Amino acid sequence: MARNPDADNAPAPKTVKNRAAEFDADKAKSFKVVGSRPPRPDGMDKVTGRARFGSDMVMPGQLVGLILRSPHPHAVIVSIDTAEAEALSGVKSVITRDDFAENADHHDVLCNIMAREKALYEGHAIAAVAATSKAVARKALKLIKVDYQILPHVTDVDEAMAPDAPLLHADMITSGVTPAPVKPSNVAARSEFGHGDVEAGFKQADVVIERDFKTAATHQGYIEPHACVANVGADGMSELWCCTQGHFHVRQVCASLLGIDVSRLRVTASEIGGGFGGKTTVFIEPVALALSRKAGRPVKIAMTRDEVFKASGPTASSSMNVKIGVTKDGRITAGYGEFRYQGGAFAGAPAEFGAMSAFACYALDNVQTIAYEVVTNRPKGAAYRAPGAPMSVYAVESVIAELAGKIGMDPIELRLKNAAREGSKSSYGPKFGSCGLVETLEAARDHPHYSSPLGPNQGRGVASGFWFNFGGETCSNLNINADGTVTIAVGTPDIGGSRAAMCIMAAEELGIPYDKVRAIVADTSALGYNDTTEGSRVTFSSGMAVIKASQKAITEMCSRAAMIWDIPAEAVTWEDGHAKPSGANAGDFEPMSLAEIAKTASKTGGPIAGHHEYNADGAGVSFGTHIVDTQVDPETGRVDILRYTVVQDAGKAIHPDYVEGQFQGGAVQGIGWALNEEYIYGEDGKLQNAGFLDYRMPVASDLPMIDTVIVEVPNPGHPYGVRGVGETGIVPPLAAIANAVSAASGVRLTELPMSPPRVLKAIDDAKVAAE
Amino acid sequence: MARNPDADNAPAPKTVKNRAAEFDADKAKSFKVVGSRPPRPDGMDKVTGRARFGSDMVMPGQLVGLILRSPHPHAVIVSIDTAEAEALSGVKSVITRDDFAENADHHDVLCNIMAREKALYEGHAIAAVAATSKAVARKALKLIKVDYQILPHVTDVDEAMAPDAPLLHADMITSGVTPAPVKPSNVAARSEFGHGDVEAGFKQADVVIERDFKTAATHQGYIEPHACVANVGADGMSELWCCTQGHFHVRQVCASLLGIDVSRLRVTASEIGGGFGGKTTVFIEPVALALSRKAGRPVKIAMTRDEVFKASGPTASSSMNVKIGVTKDGRITAGYGEFRYQGGAFAGAPAEFGAMSAFACYALDNVQTIAYEVVTNRPKGAAYRAPGAPMSVYAVESVIAELAGKIGMDPIELRLKNAAREGSKSSYGPKFGSCGLVETLEAARDHPHYSSPLGPNQGRGVASGFWFNFGGETCSNLNINADGTVTIAVGTPDIGGSRAAMCIMAAEELGIPYDKVRAIVADTSALGYNDTTEGSRVTFSSGMAVIKASQKAITEMCSRAAMIWDIPAEAVTWEDGHAKPSGANAGDFEPMSLAEIAKTASKTGGPIAGHHEYNADGAGVSFGTHIVDTQVDPETGRVDILRYTVVQDAGKAIHPDYVEGQFQGGAVQGIGWALNEEYIYGEDGKLQNAGFLDYRMPVASDLPMIDTVIVEVPNPGHPYGVRGVGETGIVPPLAAIANAVSAASGVRLTELPMSPPRVLKAIDDAKVAAE
Repeated sequence: MARNPDADNAPAPKTVKNRAAEFDADKAKSFKVVGSRPPRPDGMDKVTGRARFGSDMVMPGQLVGLILRSPHPHAVIVSIDTAEAEALSGVKSVITRDDFAENADHHDVLCNIMAREKALYEGHAIAAVAATSKAVARKALKLIKVDYQILPHVTDVDEAMAPDAPLLHADMITSGVTPAPVKPSNVAARSEFGHGDVEAGFKQADVVIERDFKTAATHQGYIEPHACVANVGADGMSELWCCTQGHFHVRQVCASLLGIDVSRLRVTASEIGGGFGGKTTVFIEPVALALSRKAGRPVKIAMTRDEVFKASGPTASSSMNVKIGVTKDGRITAGYGEFRYQGGAFAGAPAEFGAMSAFACYALDNVQTIAYEVVTNRPKGAAYRAPGAPMSVYAVESVIAELAGKIGMDPIELRLKNAAREGSKSSYGPKFGSCGLVETLEAARDHPHYSSPLGPNQGRGVASGFWFNFGGETCSNLNINADGTVTIAVGTPDIGGSRAAMCIMAAEELGIPYDKVRAIVADTSALGYNDTTEGSRVTFSSGMAVIKASQKAITEMCSRAAMIWDIPAEAVTWEDGHAKPSGANAGDFEPMSLAEIAKTASKTGGPIAGHHEYNADGAGVSFGTHIVDTQVDPETGRVDILRYTVVQDAGKAIHPDYVEGQFQGGAVQGIGWALNEEYIYGEDGKLQNAGFLDYRMPVASDLPMIDTVIVEVPNPGHPYGVRGVGETGIVPPLAAIANAVSAASGVRLTELPMSPPRVLKAIDDAKVAAE
Repeated sequence: MARNPDADNAPAPKTVKNRAAEFDADKAKSFKVVGSRPPRPDGMDKVTGRARFGSDMVMPGQLVGLILRSPHPHAVIVSIDTAEAEALSGVKSVITRDDFAENADHHDVLCNIMAREKALYEGHAIAAVAATSKAVARKALKLIKVDYQILPHVTDVDEAMAPDAPLLHADMITSGVTPAPVKPSNVAARSEFGHGDVEAGFKQADVVIERDFKTAATHQGYIEPHACVANVGADGMSELWCCTQGHFHVRQVCASLLGIDVSRLRVTASEIGGGFGGKTTVFIEPVALALSRKAGRPVKIAMTRDEVFKASGPTASSSMNVKIGVTKDGRITAGYGEFRYQGGAFAGAPAEFGAMSAFACYALDNVQTIAYEVVTNRPKGAAYRAPGAPMSVYAVESVIAELAGKIGMDPIELRLKNAAREGSKSSYGPKFGSCGLVETLEAARDHPHYSSPLGPNQGRGVASGFWFNFGGETCSNLNINADGTVTIAVGTPDIGGSRAAMCIMAAEELGIPYDKVRAIVADTSALGYNDTTEGSRVTFSSGMAVIKASQKAITEMCSRAAMIWDIPAEAVTWEDGHAKPSGANAGDFEPMSLAEIAKTASKTGGPIAGHHEYNADGAGVSFGTHIVDTQVDPETGRVDILRYTVVQDAGKAIHPDYVEGQFQGGAVQGIGWALNEEYIYGEDGKLQNAGFLDYRMPVASDLPMIDTVIVEVPNPGHPYGVRGVGETGIVPPLAAIANAVSAASGVRLTELPMSPPRVLKAIDDAKVAAE
């Protein structure tokens, strides 16, 4: 979660009021707009090419910015000579590490966007130029002389943890260890979660299985490369257009790196061609701003696909150990897991989230998870949909499936027997409130898919998954226009249909048709701080802000009607899009519609609006269960996905099309991760498949239609019961597919991706072992 | 005033609360930021070329839009054949009158932006094309065949009022006349103001002077031609970037003309290269939108200077009759005026404002003014700084000067003797509240300029002037950023430094330095409806909205501090940028600064903001008095401005530089109007000087430095006492210069401009008459 960083060190209030339960069960019984499926507001623009993405902004006099990147995975940068590049005609500015001051608040970001003492990965930015054309900029890059002193490198997480591994940061002391280690290492942090006594628990078990697992780093695979246009004025007033999941976060980080007040930087989020967590951080934005400041002209930087792979943030690769014990009748007596994630050259691998969510599906008496956050000579990772959870859950759910087989119990029954439910203590600490894991398991069990027949070389896998979901700082403005239409401004970029969801919720609350409401993503100057679109927070948090803003506008509209009728404001209620006199002494007036009240606004006090700013909590956890059938070709090791069903608790699906889309998208990304996607590094520490030809993402022909079942267990923390839905869907697929492959092939694979060579080798090894 | 048009027919509330007096006299005694002169926030951008004006937006795939204009001043459009143009390669859309539906709400605008049955003036839009290049668009215009049936035309206001004048609109019946005339005419409206008995008043006078006056139409002369980029999506979602004084008004009119919901059109106001009232209406914007809708691509239209002159809105030309009586000791016994203004081809000449403001400087027992709004075959006029007032005041103040001479009284003394002051009944109806005419007259009288010596052929003129000033619908968002800086969003385009004034007022109210505040002009999606930047309303209305929003943010910050201290919110006050515990039981806490509270915001409930929406009244009238010295060359008739002093009541000058700039700008435009500027029409009804080479605006070498004196009589309707200052400054110059020319030359000119040939002729005529 990218939170307002200043807040972390701020004094906390002595008392903070508990938020009341928000869910309105009565209203939920009679939804008129919520749950409908109107056309998506961004759809037309995207299919007709009108939507403006990161590189679609053009500013007068704009320059082309290009970045020189390290060819070495690990090297001291002895010197950088930019003199010749600067002298080249058409070059307007050249920047290096010398153009950024040290920054205590964002040290790692600073070192990542432009290497300082060392280049820490292949692709690490070393210098940048802004020139009048791409040809000139390219030529200038070639004229920059960098003197590197090459160092040994490490890219594998286990190797990086070895005592003699090349050290990335000479001052990195593992946090979370008492007493603190004296020697630096590549382990940035260790953390631990759990309760009970796992050793005692394993003793109660009839069957205990322990396995080691590895997963590869994968990329979010968004279509649109990072792109931005920066424009810094001679007086420091700055603007930035960029594709991002969080323009307020971008503003904050860039303002800090540039050493300017937040108010001096105005950031506009373009339409976004996919993010999935990968656009929650900054890479090129501060570079473009620094180039623009130096050049005195706007600068556009757009990454190539090669740069996206080598220098943006994929997710972590992992090495894990999981051990689970179970009684013959299916009670899990203990669960243990160790999760070692490498997150590239700087701290921040999502190992902690992995350790927290590994056993979240289960109500356990004895559970312990340990997380290690490791640095390697790879690009610094970024968030990727439920960061950290798919890997750890892959490990746990693989062992669960194996245990079910061992004790001869249906795997869904085993899960139901141990499922987390309201009131059970989670493996990471807090007790669960209302939640829907049991409901998704039951729905999966009862789904026709689960009982359909399978053929030879086919197998079925099941897995459950969990995500926390977040709230966070959120603001919304809602304005009632004179013609009775409504404009909503939110500060959370729309990566999954949130504008439609906002319009639906406002229409529901105000009692007007969906098409009378338009939501836009405002730039940073129009709203207070908004946390980034991540953590499956937007439909929940921005949605609640829109509902609260609607309610404030309704209060104002009632008071305007009261003024017109000359009755007390308390004597007016809002019903079905109309202000109505209410109560014995209110008088006999025709109800006034929103449009009628809007028309009079200038005479009754001026424009009518509603605003809401808050720090949302109560997001409500989300669980899902996936069923997948695979067919494994024993001759080639190729895995086909035959059928796939996602069952997930959405709390309440505001716009079911988008919810289903999230379910399907999560499953598809999980399929890619499970079967083919991986960052392949050579011995030389260089990425060998930095492009979509060699980095094998699933395409339409690889996939069946993904079936979806929306379970709705209302979240008490939201007026309409909404839970986040974006991330949980990528958590179960890795394990579900591994379980299906195991069922189809008869061999258990413990390393991802399960690409044909690896599957074939596992089958062949098993044959050899059996002989 | 471009008001929310729907509001006009809406039911009015039975009771509307009176707004309390707003002025805070205590606060005004200790201003810390108000009255300072920080650098203008738009200054750097404008001088370095970074500011983006109307034509500086580029959208991907954008087309060039051009407009075919009528070569005839008056003609029936029998037919328009666009077939050949449409067939031309590269042409993506062609539109004519057929592409706009009838529109009852904006009939005249509709007929003006694209001629319907008739072309009513040279330059009237007939058709438009959007093409891939300007060359193609130009070629396409030539391929459009228009069959005109030419009609007789009229361009002079008096000729247009003649019984046998060519009629522009066969259905135009003069409004404001009882009983309504049966015959149509070119007089759109007649209105009358005044009180007492003027005939009786004239009988009491010792001296009565009656004169006829004429003034020419002038253009606002903004540097930037109208330009916009329109982008209509396949689903009707539309956006518009344009240079305008009122993007909310543009949104409303364009949405109506296009037949779409207001919420579907998002309008962004670019930086504006001058407006002065001329950018308060729409000309090209609906055309660009219609072209874009038809083409399915963005369309840019930028007027040429020729188009600006022929097809945007200049101010009215006028023909006037004024009669004033005065006693020997300087009491004005009666004032009468008839004001005939032509405003081009459609109703709307500002004759009513002229009639209302003509005698506004005087407290009269007997006064009557009559206004005639006349149509002619000229482009429809637009607002121009204090619309209608400079001409009528020119007439009245010329006669006043002549009367002062006749009775041998100092002209300032004569004015002081009859000056409007608090409590006196205005000539247009309401009683004046607190106002500063007397103070400006006294300051002028006491200014060294007024007693400085003059040489041969030199003369001094004095005149006073008045403007109403307006309030109107206004909204503001104010957001406190985590780093203690503040962002303000207002909806009123900054044409005269309002962003600086907003920042000053917020800084004053919040108790923080000016440079911690940044104001931006938000697009229409981020705020409720804002009336246009006109009527000298912005520093008053948006300023008050910013102050109120600041106060709301302060209330919130006090409550956050109370939460942190665990004391009641009522026990916290705001002082000097800090929350402080206050009262016996509040406790002993260190005051918390705005920045400290901002830092904690995420922990105390989320982002802190203040918002305000209202319909502002109480703008407070503004008076000014100008002194000017001229030298008239008797050989050539050339007039030089030797010295010029503007004295005006600003209520309170928030940023004195800008106030002085407004004073100076008004004087300079008045100088141009008085001496040289005029639309010159030939017998053929065509404009002969559509360009800055032939339309003679003053340049730097024509002008002395304009001295300014800011008088500050606080406006009780504003917390800081602000009055509008933008318009009054153009009201006195015409008369002041006429009076100075008369003093210098010995002849009284009654027609503007006083260009050399006209002055020379007057001098020669006087010589002949004297011989």
